[in-house]
Amino acid sequence: MRIDDLPIRDDLRGKSPYGAPQLDVAVRLNTNENSYPLPDDVVEAIGKAVQAELRDLNRYPDRDAVALRTVLADYLGHGLTTDNLWAANGSNEVQQQLLQAFGGPGRTALGFGPSYSMHPLLALGTGTEWIGALRDPDFGLDPDKAVAELAKHDPDLVFLCSPNNPTGTALDPEVITAVLERARGVVIVDEAYAEFARAGTPSALTLLSEHPRLVVSRTMSKAFGFAGGRLGYFAAHPAVVEAIQLVRLPYHLSALTQAAARAAVAQRDALLATVEAIKEQRDRIVRTLRERGYRVADSDANFVLFEVGGDQKIAWQRLLDQGVLIRDVGLPGWLRVTAGTPAETDAFLQATEALK
Amino acid sequence: MRIDDLPIRDDLRGKSPYGAPQLDVAVRLNTNENSYPLPDDVVEAIGKAVQAELRDLNRYPDRDAVALRTVLADYLGHGLTTDNLWAANGSNEVQQQLLQAFGGPGRTALGFGPSYSMHPLLALGTGTEWIGALRDPDFGLDPDKAVAELAKHDPDLVFLCSPNNPTGTALDPEVITAVLERARGVVIVDEAYAEFARAGTPSALTLLSEHPRLVVSRTMSKAFGFAGGRLGYFAAHPAVVEAIQLVRLPYHLSALTQAAARAAVAQRDALLATVEAIKEQRDRIVRTLRERGYRVADSDANFVLFEVGGDQKIAWQRLLDQGVLIRDVGLPGWLRVTAGTPAETDAFLQATEALK
Repeated sequence: MRIDDLPIRDDLRGKSPYGAPQLDVAVRLNTNENSYPLPDDVVEAIGKAVQAELRDLNRYPDRDAVALRTVLADYLGHGLTTDNLWAANGSNEVQQQLLQAFGGPGRTALGFGPSYSMHPLLALGTGTEWIGALRDPDFGLDPDKAVAELAKHDPDLVFLCSPNNPTGTALDPEVITAVLERARGVVIVDEAYAEFARAGTPSALTLLSEHPRLVVSRTMSKAFGFAGGRLGYFAAHPAVVEAIQLVRLPYHLSALTQAAARAAVAQRDALLATVEAIKEQRDRIVRTLRERGYRVADSDANFVLFEVGGDQKIAWQRLLDQGVLIRDVGLPGWLRVTAGTPAETDAFLQATEALK
Repeated sequence: MRIDDLPIRDDLRGKSPYGAPQLDVAVRLNTNENSYPLPDDVVEAIGKAVQAELRDLNRYPDRDAVALRTVLADYLGHGLTTDNLWAANGSNEVQQQLLQAFGGPGRTALGFGPSYSMHPLLALGTGTEWIGALRDPDFGLDPDKAVAELAKHDPDLVFLCSPNNPTGTALDPEVITAVLERARGVVIVDEAYAEFARAGTPSALTLLSEHPRLVVSRTMSKAFGFAGGRLGYFAAHPAVVEAIQLVRLPYHLSALTQAAARAAVAQRDALLATVEAIKEQRDRIVRTLRERGYRVADSDANFVLFEVGGDQKIAWQRLLDQGVLIRDVGLPGWLRVTAGTPAETDAFLQATEALK
């Protein structure tokens, strides 16, 4: 028996599982991980916090993850409290829950591509119809154009991504405000890469107090270097958090996840110390590729999108052949590379010589 | 702003979040947890396994959780291998994924109540229409009656629960076979409590090799005493596992969860050592309540359903007033109590004296 012999949903037939190849190569710059392993003292702190939970693993965890939500609120600032915060196993689960509560069968979600490719897949997985609007050819988003798309489609949810994955650039707050003022439904601003934004780039968190249907989604996978710990979260009006509790799976966050994430947030100074070093490598990649004549998108994230000049599939393989794994995001002619350590940047820049 | 001012789905309006009260009382016998904390050597083994992951938490976990699925296949036996197994954050997530792949908008799922109350909620959350058929008045399920319900509704998925929560009794394999032979779609047998079954009760795992649309769902929350670790899994034909990979969230299982669960399965002799002691307490509760004249359902699980003779809400509160928290599952006249330690059974049996 094969998968097509099973009574799977028709809209899944012929599809492939999402995910970049997990290849064992020397330089992995394909999933926007933080290249720095956790420092020893952070390892010790998280280890202690997890150890304290083990004896009582026979008991279900705090279903509402109150202590974790409290430290996340404290981290975000902006006057946010526990009631404004929600957390789940990665920002994918957070966004899936938002789609379950505010989207679903008979409802629509709109996003502006190219953007994070999980957004339409999460819509599909929750029976929400996806409307794929487009960014400008330079990957920007004009407020008037965004508002026109909203007027045309009147979606139940809007996904914005800032800094945008895979293009790297943060949205002008003017765009977010224009969308918020026009949107009938919930507006999710996915800020997975917020901590890497260039100086002076405001977060959508600043808009929360005035916009009760705004949700700002975050993750600990990137700046915090906590991708393996799986912790995504959002900040929103407390009523949004209440709504999510109607659809979340009970006890969705393990006691280990809650304890490890709490400890990681407590160790944030040590963890976020890598952010500046990563931004330096990002800026170095942008600068060097531009010096070499590549077209490169501005980046507020820990990755850089650049035009390879030709078939990106061939360029991707050529870099992989030299032990450098980056990401083909399916954007014809472009590739995305994660900014990691100086040595990784060296290897990447060296390997790209072969693309000329 | 309140939750009703938000554009939540109409079918969620007025609903309350699922979940038993998490109250801080002396005797908690309401969520079918394993009352025994993890032994010291198991704590040490899990602690070591988790510690080994911490330094590299900056990297995403194995998306396919291959090592964990391999040890789970080994635990289940029956000739199962890695390709037959799938794991997620609790059996709720496993079952949600099955509904996303095989149910969803325009499709139906049928179950026989009273049964696990999350099944219809998971259907709701995935846009799957729920068809609530009924068990016999004595909580059994007659194969002819089950087949007649299938013929009438022709569902895309069937949920069976054996041993059944909240009634406690395992299904006759004859019923499962009859359903499998009649069902057009996928049949999920939820065996969360399988390890507590009375001697001679076969698992639906024995039927897997002949029924490619059968899925046997399990959890580590109960017999393994791993409720806080959140690990559910299923065994099925490899094509079913492939289908789930089309809907699972990428990296849904953290590196910590995978490591902790692997270590717990490796320590299974120590963890499952509590099962016999719990079964003794279960049988003692059944026996004692029957001696006192209560109507009590047969139990193959770590809990007992009994008729209180009157309003179960009042009886529940009366027990809570004495520091014994059990579960009102919404079945008029009946309450469910978890079998825990001998001291917890003492306290429960003592408290029930007040119900007379």
